[in-house]
Amino acid sequence: MTRPPETLDALNAMPASSFVAATGQAFEHAPWVAEAVVNGRPFPTVAALHEAMMQAVRSAPPDRVAAFIGGHPELGSRVKRAELTDHSQAEQGGLGLDRLSAEEFDRFSRLNAAYREKFGFPFIICVRRHTRDSILREFDKRLGNDAATERAAAVNEIGLITRLRLVEAVDGPGKPATTGRLSTHVLDTVSGRPAPGVKITLHEIGASARGLLKETITNADGRTDAPLIGGEPLRVGTYELAFHIGAYFASRKHAIVADPPFLDVVPIRFAIAEPEGHYHVPLLATPWSYTTYRGS
Amino acid sequence: MTRPPETLDALNAMPASSFVAATGQAFEHAPWVAEAVVNGRPFPTVAALHEAMMQAVRSAPPDRVAAFIGGHPELGSRVKRAELTDHSQAEQGGLGLDRLSAEEFDRFSRLNAAYREKFGFPFIICVRRHTRDSILREFDKRLGNDAATERAAAVNEIGLITRLRLVEAVDGPGKPATTGRLSTHVLDTVSGRPAPGVKITLHEIGASARGLLKETITNADGRTDAPLIGGEPLRVGTYELAFHIGAYFASRKHAIVADPPFLDVVPIRFAIAEPEGHYHVPLLATPWSYTTYRGS
Amino acid sequence: MTRPPETLDALNAMPASSFVAATGQAFEHAPWVAEAVVNGRPFPTVAALHEAMMQAVRSAPPDRVAAFIGGHPELGSRVKRAELTDHSQAEQGGLGLDRLSAEEFDRFSRLNAAYREKFGFPFIICVRRHTRDSILREFDKRLGNDAATERAAAVNEIGLITRLRLVEAVDGPGKPATTGRLSTHVLDTVSGRPAPGVKITLHEIGASARGLLKETITNADGRTDAPLIGGEPLRVGTYELAFHIGAYFASRKHAIVADPPFLDVVPIRFAIAEPEGHYHVPLLATPWSYTTYRGS
Amino acid sequence: MTRPPETLDALNAMPASSFVAATGQAFEHAPWVAEAVVNGRPFPTVAALHEAMMQAVRSAPPDRVAAFIGGHPELGSRVKRAELTDHSQAEQGGLGLDRLSAEEFDRFSRLNAAYREKFGFPFIICVRRHTRDSILREFDKRLGNDAATERAAAVNEIGLITRLRLVEAVDGPGKPATTGRLSTHVLDTVSGRPAPGVKITLHEIGASARGLLKETITNADGRTDAPLIGGEPLRVGTYELAFHIGAYFASRKHAIVADPPFLDVVPIRFAIAEPEGHYHVPLLATPWSYTTYRGS
Repeated sequence: MTRPPETLDALNAMPASSFVAATGQAFEHAPWVAEAVVNGRPFPTVAALHEAMMQAVRSAPPDRVAAFIGGHPELGSRVKRAELTDHSQAEQGGLGLDRLSAEEFDRFSRLNAAYREKFGFPFIICVRRHTRDSILREFDKRLGNDAATERAAAVNEIGLITRLRLVEAVDGPGKPATTGRLSTHVLDTVSGRPAPGVKITLHEIGASARGLLKETITNADGRTDAPLIGGEPLRVGTYELAFHIGAYFASRKHAIVADPPFLDVVPIRFAIAEPEGHYHVPLLATPWSYTTYRGS
Repeated sequence: MTRPPETLDALNAMPASSFVAATGQAFEHAPWVAEAVVNGRPFPTVAALHEAMMQAVRSAPPDRVAAFIGGHPELGSRVKRAELTDHSQAEQGGLGLDRLSAEEFDRFSRLNAAYREKFGFPFIICVRRHTRDSILREFDKRLGNDAATERAAAVNEIGLITRLRLVEAVDGPGKPATTGRLSTHVLDTVSGRPAPGVKITLHEIGASARGLLKETITNADGRTDAPLIGGEPLRVGTYELAFHIGAYFASRKHAIVADPPFLDVVPIRFAIAEPEGHYHVPLLATPWSYTTYRGS
Repeated sequence: MTRPPETLDALNAMPASSFVAATGQAFEHAPWVAEAVVNGRPFPTVAALHEAMMQAVRSAPPDRVAAFIGGHPELGSRVKRAELTDHSQAEQGGLGLDRLSAEEFDRFSRLNAAYREKFGFPFIICVRRHTRDSILREFDKRLGNDAATERAAAVNEIGLITRLRLVEAVDGPGKPATTGRLSTHVLDTVSGRPAPGVKITLHEIGASARGLLKETITNADGRTDAPLIGGEPLRVGTYELAFHIGAYFASRKHAIVADPPFLDVVPIRFAIAEPEGHYHVPLLATPWSYTTYRGS
Repeated sequence: MTRPPETLDALNAMPASSFVAATGQAFEHAPWVAEAVVNGRPFPTVAALHEAMMQAVRSAPPDRVAAFIGGHPELGSRVKRAELTDHSQAEQGGLGLDRLSAEEFDRFSRLNAAYREKFGFPFIICVRRHTRDSILREFDKRLGNDAATERAAAVNEIGLITRLRLVEAVDGPGKPATTGRLSTHVLDTVSGRPAPGVKITLHEIGASARGLLKETITNADGRTDAPLIGGEPLRVGTYELAFHIGAYFASRKHAIVADPPFLDVVPIRFAIAEPEGHYHVPLLATPWSYTTYRGS
């Protein structure tokens, strides 16, 4: 959205047509959604506003919902890039869906075609909550649905997409949670202290993965100054943290290490399934052992 | 049983009356059990012999089973000690049921009385598989049973008691498992090596517990030369291992320890529920951290 | 100190005699310490003020220092309780030194006498940083010192005592750290979630220990709403946390537990050596395993 | 060695010339080594025989040692393959040094040339104790040595090479340890049981690594039926075990897993530094946490 955020108070007080213009953007090409809730104002929270708008979608006549679903752009369709709204372009671009290899483009095209042939509408998914690998996984899974289940799945994804947009477009109380967080912590259990200066990399891994996402180093508290990922939804997918503890212990006076060290770069491979969750993935390490877990 | 073990081969071949004399001892005051199976010989395994004898018990007329159950001695009944068979005395003696405090004796007496009043027969339990605390726990639990359930429970315990006796009385193939094992292992994860010379104590704990059962020290492989408990059923109950790792790490050149050490004596408290199981309870330790688990 | 805290600004600006009265309280019966630094004002931080006062002590003539040390009350001396300043009484009272058993009183008396005979001045220790057991341990250790080492040790303890008093008596920037913190966290690694509702007790243990210090329960984040100990120095000593994870896992639908459960009450025994440190002692648990460590 | 093993007893008793023929093979082109010890017979152990032969090498005149060292083949030298003794060919072949890529061959050739130029003799290393990566690492490290250190290093490697050959050529008591072992164990700490049916792969990793070495599956005890590597020296190098615990927990009724599972394939990356050591690398796992360590 190119316009600056409105406050919820302002949205509750403005003329109906301004409200439709201001909030309607979250629902592409569907001002009727905003129109359906304008008389429900004032909304006490941003979450209540979004829930009312989704309720309007879910209770709209089937034809209108079908047209609404059908108006969404296809995923990864290069030839259609010019027709994307600014929102959709930014959302799909963040994942590199506009820079697919020929092979990946073909795979997406085949899936799009199969999906459209089976269901008669485009595959809708809240791209910002997914990696390319999890989109392909969802594609495969949802292609097996029956039509009613899949229409509900499409509306559910629209709810996730518009929730993200609304949270960015409206300032006010009671925003729904739309961001996740990935954090870590390195404990040196030889000395019972946080391990500072440990190099950490984070890769997205998988057939279509984006590769290196972050390289950082632990601070004096054994943590990273900023979350490894934060302030946005975590993308469902597989990741690998690599902790360079060999170099760390080599620099400690009292560490008992072998040559080459038993542990050098410790990989922790894990999947994220909850885009709005907090994944704390710490490492408790000696030169000869380690423990990791999903913490909180 | 004071007579030396017979071999299964000998039992299979001897005259019927000798067979009854030799195996009947396992079933106190009930030669009819051995008589019922004598024509089922030869038995291929000790387990098959025992199973046949228990099948004879389970299919005997109710009156005979009731008399058989009723003929068992009461638990912890000092006044009846003189009437115990040698077997029962040894079995109950190992747990100190003949050395109860006045308070414990009263508790056992009250439970025995309540049980006999409700069910009309004495409380039967395979004492060698229990601690005093678990006997009291079973007493409480089984007092809540109905009569049919409890008769089955009594027969089941007779099966456990006689299985132990038969395994000791008969040498041969296919002995049922009647012994458990408790073992440990101490790993020093600062050096990636077993921890030798670590003092370990094992206590039985609880209101009526026997206290210190074992004090030992780890060998060069971080293990104990003999299992902490072995060669007999493990007694259901609560135990505490204490690992003296403070002294161990104080003696290691490179250990980083505080004064006083963060970890000195590490207690691991756990319960045994499977008398014939293997409980391996290791410790992976640094001066600042440890991990324990039921291993195998 | 019964008077309300002064601000550092006020102390820096007030007449010399008021300054001596206000800060001198931290240094019992020794107004000369405050007098020695009054012209060093203004002090930018509370820490700088305290350091200047301690510097005055350390550079005072030996006789004056000796008299200053000698003016401190003896530990645990009931007969002298009436002569304690309000400060000393409150500080020693928190540990129950005014409620010693006859045996403990005798032990303290003997140590006090031996110490005074060897060094000619009373044993000084910052009681608020110690348990009775660690005081006795320090007594034994310091009785072995030579006179010069022990005079320095006494001055060092006076620094710790007065630092605590000054921090309470003066409001202002740059307060030295005088408090520690003990916290915990329970992770259920069966479900990858914090464990809520886990009962936790904290005991001080040892021959002269105070016993139960805290009983609490974990909140939705698996932590305790308040630190187990906080807002004051941690007392050097041995502690035992007990985590009631048996009851927790018994209440979880999918936990695989034995009867009795392998782990019920998990004791974690550890020592605190740094009164101003942060001790985070978490538990990562399943019904069959756990890990603990000094975290941060 | 193509001839069958001799017994130590036979070697101790046979004519001198037969002894030289039988044992001399372990020391390529250097019958003088066997000749030097033939009168030292009988040797009580295979280790004593080998130690005597190495002592003969170490105390031989410098020229003879130099010639002996100089007579060894160059590593990875394709053009010289025809000149290798059967032993050397088998030993170097097991690592694929006869199937080097052009780039690797060039690298080895350059290192060989640099080494020969600096020291005047070929680089000798007990290939069966190394991976290609560790050979290259040793090459780099030893190129920095001075001549005396490196002559000692070459003799030391000859000791390791001949020890392996002698152990295979001679049957008898007191064989020196020449084999290592890599083993694993998977514990399911959700159920407190070994994890059966877990797929495990072992890869050698690194720039010149051999890749997949083993694919296996855990048995009922959570172990592998055979060691992952055993019966030969472990090769110094970097390895990665991958435990497919996602599929395992997906098959367990009570496991609490996400979709996709937080942990699916768990990689454990470690280096082996002791070819004759025992590396036990177990995994204690839930669907949300794991611990690994060098065990014993």
